[in-house]
Amino acid sequence: MSPETERQQAIRTLADLIGQIRIAMLTTVTPEGGFRSRPLTTHGARFDGDLWFLTRLGSPKLEEMRQHHRVGLTYVRSDDNTYVSLSGTARILVDPGKAEELWDPSYQGWFPGGPTDPDLALINVTVDLAEYWTAPALTWPL
Amino acid sequence: MSPETERQQAIRTLADLIGQIRIAMLTTVTPEGGFRSRPLTTHGARFDGDLWFLTRLGSPKLEEMRQHHRVGLTYVRSDDNTYVSLSGTARILVDPGKAEELWDPSYQGWFPGGPTDPDLALINVTVDLAEYWTAPALTWPL
Repeated sequence: MSPETERQQAIRTLADLIGQIRIAMLTTVTPEGGFRSRPLTTHGARFDGDLWFLTRLGSPKLEEMRQHHRVGLTYVRSDDNTYVSLSGTARILVDPGKAEELWDPSYQGWFPGGPTDPDLALINVTVDLAEYWTAPALTWPL
Repeated sequence: MSPETERQQAIRTLADLIGQIRIAMLTTVTPEGGFRSRPLTTHGARFDGDLWFLTRLGSPKLEEMRQHHRVGLTYVRSDDNTYVSLSGTARILVDPGKAEELWDPSYQGWFPGGPTDPDLALINVTVDLAEYWTAPALTWPL
């Protein structure tokens, strides 16, 4: 296989895993230099190197990302030992046009005002490093 | 409940979750400032603020931890939406005495030389920030 084909296959596998697992742990760095991770639902569009999340404008993680743009993301499916690690740079957007484009009716419960809800912020992560592991339990190294 | 009791209960809950999930995603910072996470089995002793891991002395994560001592840990059980986030400081030890103390026969497959295997390193993480979420799927915020 050519390197390009391998890369395309790796991105396809990553996109499949992210699409199936959906809930990421998004890791940010605190002002004190510690790490904080929290579960966050990934927007459903297919991964192509960028990821989108909807969140509340007042969420403390936004302040952490404003101070320190680099973020980590992990996706874990514990029942079959599937693990994804991503590293990237986060941007925060308040962009009703983009929110309209990303909108899904399932978001309505969280943002009753729809894509123009004043409490809605978008997080865009551009991924620059990705790794994944898919393996049966017994092969796990310590 | 007094704050101390609440704290003790929270540590007990955390210890239970970590003990059940066992496989952490350990997040380190690369020399370029990116994040790398990888699955790692937690040593079985009960969490009391410290965590132990066995790893190979040549593992690249050790070099990342030597450069940047702060690490993140997450524990995820995806089938019931359980998420744990920990932040701490890592120490790397080559300490056959401690390895002997931690030793479990299940480690033999990875380190045929036992606690004195020349390829065996210990990672100790002292946790200074911990959060967890346990909730049914439908209550998950975006």
